[in-house]
Amino acid sequence: MQLSGIYEPIREDLTKVEKELGAVSKVSFPWLAELLDHSLSGGGKGIRPALTLLSGKLYHYNLSTLLPMATAVEILHVATLVHDDAIDKAAVRRGKPTLYRVWGEDKAVLLGDYLFAKAGELTATTKNLRVIRLFAQTLRTISTGELAQAFNAFNLKQTYEHYIQRNSYKTAALFNLATESGGVLSKAPKASIRILNEYGHNLGIAFQIVDDVLDFVGTEEELGKPTGSDLAQGTLTLPTMLLLERYPEDNPVKRLFQNRDRKENIKLAIELVRNSSIIDECYRIAADFCAKANRNLNLLPDNASRRALIELADYVVTRKR
Amino acid sequence: MQLSGIYEPIREDLTKVEKELGAVSKVSFPWLAELLDHSLSGGGKGIRPALTLLSGKLYHYNLSTLLPMATAVEILHVATLVHDDAIDKAAVRRGKPTLYRVWGEDKAVLLGDYLFAKAGELTATTKNLRVIRLFAQTLRTISTGELAQAFNAFNLKQTYEHYIQRNSYKTAALFNLATESGGVLSKAPKASIRILNEYGHNLGIAFQIVDDVLDFVGTEEELGKPTGSDLAQGTLTLPTMLLLERYPEDNPVKRLFQNRDRKENIKLAIELVRNSSIIDECYRIAADFCAKANRNLNLLPDNASRRALIELADYVVTRKR
Repeated sequence: MQLSGIYEPIREDLTKVEKELGAVSKVSFPWLAELLDHSLSGGGKGIRPALTLLSGKLYHYNLSTLLPMATAVEILHVATLVHDDAIDKAAVRRGKPTLYRVWGEDKAVLLGDYLFAKAGELTATTKNLRVIRLFAQTLRTISTGELAQAFNAFNLKQTYEHYIQRNSYKTAALFNLATESGGVLSKAPKASIRILNEYGHNLGIAFQIVDDVLDFVGTEEELGKPTGSDLAQGTLTLPTMLLLERYPEDNPVKRLFQNRDRKENIKLAIELVRNSSIIDECYRIAADFCAKANRNLNLLPDNASRRALIELADYVVTRKR
Repeated sequence: MQLSGIYEPIREDLTKVEKELGAVSKVSFPWLAELLDHSLSGGGKGIRPALTLLSGKLYHYNLSTLLPMATAVEILHVATLVHDDAIDKAAVRRGKPTLYRVWGEDKAVLLGDYLFAKAGELTATTKNLRVIRLFAQTLRTISTGELAQAFNAFNLKQTYEHYIQRNSYKTAALFNLATESGGVLSKAPKASIRILNEYGHNLGIAFQIVDDVLDFVGTEEELGKPTGSDLAQGTLTLPTMLLLERYPEDNPVKRLFQNRDRKENIKLAIELVRNSSIIDECYRIAADFCAKANRNLNLLPDNASRRALIELADYVVTRKR
């Protein structure tokens, strides 16, 4: 299923989020407007703001708080990407040069900070202390996950549990913020908020697993960035872990992590993974997380938004970018 | 006057802020605890949290909100320093190696993000929407000021007004947050909050001017970092602006900004400034801002905290580090 179809119940309001994002770039300093426009305009799939709106539409849909919240969730996401690209010295993202590449690292770091603040301000306009607290906690969790990744770069001794925990921190926390804030702001009952929370968490883990798979099987055109980026950064992801398991002696990942023939070994690792059942296994694990995500959704009100959440979980494991 | 004397009315509670800062480092990941401890332990003058506590002590002093707020203000300050050092590739701060130097740029960027989040969480515990909003706005203002500085590095065509505006954004906004939040959380009347707000703003500008002077006249031991750092970064500060005014033709700053003989021209510029009346003029301008800061303090309740605020303004223009 296409995203546009899944988004149908919130199509108009998602356009309003786009508009809000556009409004963020309307500032008086032209150099700042340019940076904001570069980072906020276009290219995103909008999954996170869609999650906030869809979750909010299960109960008392109130756009006056859900709209700034959905916008904040997307801006927080963009801010982390801007910092990630500066850290990874990434040249391309979403098919265009990164802010880091065009304006340099200093501007990327500072614009990321600006975006965190802007997202915080938008969250504060909801006047809901619970989502305000959750927003700050989420940023802290994401930073912890990213730090865990940085500290474990080129470390071969990481378990599946480490990997899932890291994904939970660096990716799933934001999905969780997206769904939980939607639930809280639409006055969902406690039990439903817990279901939305678990949905967001599991969907986020699945999303990250697929992201890690796409880094092996996607084309540069589909991904909007080079294939093998994770390996180049020394990030151990699920496909790599399975590869290490299957070839415990000599293998290209080990040689790469020992800093030997980088380019050649990245190419070899990608080929080995592609020509094995590893990809299928990763998708199976991701699908398990999606099933977990959907598990209790039937306890939520039966409407178009609930169906969209279920379809979104299907989309996550079939997406190509 | 010594800071310890000025801090007398809040001495005990400032110790509690120190304790709160120490508690932030108590996390389960040892690599994270180490980074937090490095950035949060010792070395700071504590002016910003002191401002929050002193402002709060003018009215209904409520430590249950003022303590997390004062701690948040200090953490926000530290977070900006951690990012600044990563951007400037600064090796030393407060007499010890920077986080950037020890752990690298990626960790510095991510730990700064973590600290922003932690400060936001602490601010949220006050449950006061006004200070929560002000906190986020302040981070955005600081980032804007830092971006303005980055975009104007090695730009000779900056006016005194640009300089004051930049200081207002990058430094005074945080002083303003410190005093205003103290006022708001202690339920100060509207007019008093405005006075505290102006005090913080003007004190912050004065503080930054003195900072910029110390970069010329301080010793590396006093500053805890190399003299001439601003010039090395291409940041045009008040002493440099006055130097350009006095020697409009050829001068070491112009040569430096044209990327000629860096080391030699920084040394020459420092000597020229030191052997002129520029330093006196800068202190005169800083003192004017301090006088503005104090102007309406007599309208606030007459107690030990008010006297401390007045003394703090005196301290700011006589400090050596």
